[in-house]
Amino acid sequence: MKIKVGILGATGYTGAELIRLLAGHPNAELKWLTSESFTDKKISEVFPTFRSLIDLECKSVRDIDKFNKVDVVFSCLPHGTSSHFAHLFLDKGTKFIDFSSDLRFNNSQLSKKAIYGLPEFLRKKIKNADLVANPGCYATAVILGLAPLVKNKLIESNSINIDAKAGLSGGGRAPVGDRQFSEVNDTISVNSISGHNQKAEIEEQMKIRYKTESKLVFTAYNVNVDRGILTTISARLNASVTKDQLLSKYKSFYKNERFIRIIEDEKMISTKNVRFSNYCDIGATILDAHIICVTALDNLGKGAAGQAVQNMNLMFNIEESAGLLSIGLLP
Amino acid sequence: MKIKVGILGATGYTGAELIRLLAGHPNAELKWLTSESFTDKKISEVFPTFRSLIDLECKSVRDIDKFNKVDVVFSCLPHGTSSHFAHLFLDKGTKFIDFSSDLRFNNSQLSKKAIYGLPEFLRKKIKNADLVANPGCYATAVILGLAPLVKNKLIESNSINIDAKAGLSGGGRAPVGDRQFSEVNDTISVNSISGHNQKAEIEEQMKIRYKTESKLVFTAYNVNVDRGILTTISARLNASVTKDQLLSKYKSFYKNERFIRIIEDEKMISTKNVRFSNYCDIGATILDAHIICVTALDNLGKGAAGQAVQNMNLMFNIEESAGLLSIGLLP
Amino acid sequence: MKIKVGILGATGYTGAELIRLLAGHPNAELKWLTSESFTDKKISEVFPTFRSLIDLECKSVRDIDKFNKVDVVFSCLPHGTSSHFAHLFLDKGTKFIDFSSDLRFNNSQLSKKAIYGLPEFLRKKIKNADLVANPGCYATAVILGLAPLVKNKLIESNSINIDAKAGLSGGGRAPVGDRQFSEVNDTISVNSISGHNQKAEIEEQMKIRYKTESKLVFTAYNVNVDRGILTTISARLNASVTKDQLLSKYKSFYKNERFIRIIEDEKMISTKNVRFSNYCDIGATILDAHIICVTALDNLGKGAAGQAVQNMNLMFNIEESAGLLSIGLLP
Amino acid sequence: MKIKVGILGATGYTGAELIRLLAGHPNAELKWLTSESFTDKKISEVFPTFRSLIDLECKSVRDIDKFNKVDVVFSCLPHGTSSHFAHLFLDKGTKFIDFSSDLRFNNSQLSKKAIYGLPEFLRKKIKNADLVANPGCYATAVILGLAPLVKNKLIESNSINIDAKAGLSGGGRAPVGDRQFSEVNDTISVNSISGHNQKAEIEEQMKIRYKTESKLVFTAYNVNVDRGILTTISARLNASVTKDQLLSKYKSFYKNERFIRIIEDEKMISTKNVRFSNYCDIGATILDAHIICVTALDNLGKGAAGQAVQNMNLMFNIEESAGLLSIGLLP
Repeated sequence: MKIKVGILGATGYTGAELIRLLAGHPNAELKWLTSESFTDKKISEVFPTFRSLIDLECKSVRDIDKFNKVDVVFSCLPHGTSSHFAHLFLDKGTKFIDFSSDLRFNNSQLSKKAIYGLPEFLRKKIKNADLVANPGCYATAVILGLAPLVKNKLIESNSINIDAKAGLSGGGRAPVGDRQFSEVNDTISVNSISGHNQKAEIEEQMKIRYKTESKLVFTAYNVNVDRGILTTISARLNASVTKDQLLSKYKSFYKNERFIRIIEDEKMISTKNVRFSNYCDIGATILDAHIICVTALDNLGKGAAGQAVQNMNLMFNIEESAGLLSIGLLP
Repeated sequence: MKIKVGILGATGYTGAELIRLLAGHPNAELKWLTSESFTDKKISEVFPTFRSLIDLECKSVRDIDKFNKVDVVFSCLPHGTSSHFAHLFLDKGTKFIDFSSDLRFNNSQLSKKAIYGLPEFLRKKIKNADLVANPGCYATAVILGLAPLVKNKLIESNSINIDAKAGLSGGGRAPVGDRQFSEVNDTISVNSISGHNQKAEIEEQMKIRYKTESKLVFTAYNVNVDRGILTTISARLNASVTKDQLLSKYKSFYKNERFIRIIEDEKMISTKNVRFSNYCDIGATILDAHIICVTALDNLGKGAAGQAVQNMNLMFNIEESAGLLSIGLLP
Repeated sequence: MKIKVGILGATGYTGAELIRLLAGHPNAELKWLTSESFTDKKISEVFPTFRSLIDLECKSVRDIDKFNKVDVVFSCLPHGTSSHFAHLFLDKGTKFIDFSSDLRFNNSQLSKKAIYGLPEFLRKKIKNADLVANPGCYATAVILGLAPLVKNKLIESNSINIDAKAGLSGGGRAPVGDRQFSEVNDTISVNSISGHNQKAEIEEQMKIRYKTESKLVFTAYNVNVDRGILTTISARLNASVTKDQLLSKYKSFYKNERFIRIIEDEKMISTKNVRFSNYCDIGATILDAHIICVTALDNLGKGAAGQAVQNMNLMFNIEESAGLLSIGLLP
Repeated sequence: MKIKVGILGATGYTGAELIRLLAGHPNAELKWLTSESFTDKKISEVFPTFRSLIDLECKSVRDIDKFNKVDVVFSCLPHGTSSHFAHLFLDKGTKFIDFSSDLRFNNSQLSKKAIYGLPEFLRKKIKNADLVANPGCYATAVILGLAPLVKNKLIESNSINIDAKAGLSGGGRAPVGDRQFSEVNDTISVNSISGHNQKAEIEEQMKIRYKTESKLVFTAYNVNVDRGILTTISARLNASVTKDQLLSKYKSFYKNERFIRIIEDEKMISTKNVRFSNYCDIGATILDAHIICVTALDNLGKGAAGQAVQNMNLMFNIEESAGLLSIGLLP
């Protein structure tokens, strides 16, 4: 018996990646998908890469009452709309995995029920969850690098500086001037240096998990790649530690995690090594009494759709890596 | 029982793609690989994307006598060296799939035994073959578009013009000035306008298959993409035919082929829709008494490693698409 | 005394390139510019690259009566709107250079007065013109390569095949889905294979100039570069000619033209060698009784704004290359 | 009378940019250039973009005694070789501008004579200098952003974190595997996180200029753009200051500097806005008791060849911006 799946808001990039992953998933079957912009169009007309493979028609959420019952719904709808649909499906006994930031904070009755979908930290809770708030792509990349440092009390919590460089698919698929090819090709530009929306998400998770008030200086930049986030976490050392000891802490922290790779030679870290995969690569070194940790993941993979499928696998008690075995693609 | 596989010359881009495809193949197992440049290094040091997944060490062909027996060898060695190794492995009862151009022409005793590995045309012979000459990437893209036109006698054979645009991975991985990033980024340049080496390969296949002397004007260009070939075949119409009739001919010609997609809206043809996949997309239209056919494939996929795996599947009588189900990746 | 200049519709890419060229022009001065989308904004807010250099405010054409009188107006307005403004300015004694295709054909009273702005062919007429129809970017690239062949009767006029590969800035600056970065990055795609709008422009010019009915098979493709067009013109030879003789014909045809460079080694032709410049590079060779000619130019340079400035220089009897000396930029 | 110029090691990217800038310089004339890799080749064969414009032949430094006397020599030779040639030319009364790091530190008799070529700080000394050590590209980008903070004592000197993102031309032109297109395209990767060679250069300049021991955490990253460096300088605030006050400090610090632009809207900072120009754009904001300063320049422009020409202009008492007026090019 395959898990029956529906997708709300399937015609953005996260939706496309979900469809691709589900198409290759041995235990899941996509039953319906919605798009208000492309209602009644075939998904293979929206994304020609799916031609002759997936022929579902995009439905409108206005017809949601007529949709076939599924086991789980992924919602790629914009921030602000999740609660309504989460309630609606949970009431029918359908599990719900949400990509918006609406349910990532414990600030409403519904969000208190939602489990933060980072399997490396909350695997057990996710297994029993009906409602999962899938983490932000930046937050995933940062938390995975930062947690072992905070947990092991290796760094001064008020000295954490995070610099995230990212490709352009994370901005979404809507046609805007800021993402026109000739505006953003061959250039490095500022995404946000005066307060990024995922900073609070990271700080909240650090607080919940380690009772630590981490104050992050968090800035983000755009470059002309399709996919990928590379983050640098630097912080002042709290203790005397060598690079080898540092890497040991990371290896030990993630020793049973198949999607986390600790890379000894930090110069080998790049987004190309993880693109189209569910891996997060982590390297670290010591520089002038500071720790420098670098993490790389695919913002649509481990940073969004890949991680959501990992969560689904846990929620339905199947092999955690099912459908997620693709290797970072080069060249 | 899995097919046991060896790879000669595994550290170029075709080798990397083969390793990736075999790693995800349900019926094959990579047993050894060679590289003269990286002898004794782990393949995951050469291609960090394989870290924690594939840990084989690169061997030298000088130690070839000590290698474990395998069922099939893929040779990515340079042109000129295949015959020696083909003989050596065939004598041991090991099947041999060769990527060089050495065995694509019927000009030696060995090459007469070799089957040209284009499954859409020679499936039966490949099934019984011990030795396969894997087609060139340009040749594959062109023959798949041209054959239905030639077979159906739709075009004047002396009016065929072919213009191939390609990404840069096809040139190989050796560090040369012509492929340094800053030389080839953000530019369209000439690859060959005075005689491309795969022109003869295409003409030979057209002759063998359709007894037609096709004289091609064939030129090739480079652009700054990693993977992909898009070819345009234009030729004067021999007959009165509509676009619909033309597309019907193509659909009928390829009606049982799962890796060939006939695309009605020719504006939707792009290399991005087929990259990392084994698909070849084909579109066609009529323009001023000429046929314009456009084909797109991934030069490392259907143009090299993907097609080679397809051939292996046929040679070992397993599902032809095993290990080749990945969808063209976007964005 | 500097030439006083106005620009209609200045906030697209052609407008930006014009502004840049005029800013470095020793004999011209930009007096006003219009933009309906950015009315009242400073041009340096629209294009931050102009900050601290050019501070003109964008005006609306609705206030056109209040604009200061200038010597020449460049119109980057969309097709269909030129005649109105051309009349208006010509009546005031202001010269008019139009980028739209409206006036490139002799099909109206106004367009009969307009000179086709290709200086290499119509220098004398342009010098005396008040109204210039600036050629299309594809048309410029093709005519410059094709004319010496047609004039010298080297090719069969019914065998001409043209394949144009181009960057994405030519499509304009309006935010559309088709030009979003993640849709068009790392891919080669079809622009037009069923009838390009500049085909007729080329055929018309060939007819006017050489009394030849040239039937072109003309197709166009997009690649992920910012600027540049590389065209391939292939045609069956009418005469027995060597590559050296062919290049001599080109050199002789363009012997006094400083912006046309005949390149002996055709493999050195690339759009990177001409980007940001007013050059058109031309190479040619013989292949199987066909001529293969390759031309490269910057679609915003010699293909649009550069050529328009060259026309302005001629119309005001100043040094033809004034303001156009920048060299193709690499890397 | 034009300044007569020679270039040692002219066939790398810094050399190419110098040649381009000198070709458009109203007061300078390139007399000879050397290249050991391309001895006896025309520079236009090495860089086809110079065809029909610059036809100098590359000479070998072995023939240095026969070269015509020039007024100034630019040396793009590798680190370690400058002292020899600096002595040789200074003895003949020829000024010398060196791109290597050899003379940037006061650690030898010769380097004590060398003036650090950052005109915004050392204009007067440069005017009287015979020997200039041209600053590193990263050092230029960082010092220009950092100096106003240090001088105005706005930040804690032990809290400075610098993250530099750069294009690939800075690595040089020699063909190496690490810069092959398919290895570095579409990816963000680590350049150096364990000790960059320009860190000491920045610290030394801060110390000399402001008697401050600045300890920098400095890391660098590569992305697939041709040119450009974007640096982020973050540091803990020492004082209570608003964004407006901060920008005022910057504006006041650079009030007479034409090549430094203070950008109010920090989101508009990008390398595309400065590429091919001699500008350095600087933006700054306050975030959680930290200053975030972002600077952008072209590593071959203000980061190398542009700044060297600026230095030459000062050394010969001509207009400082001569030959440097080109505007950042878009798209």
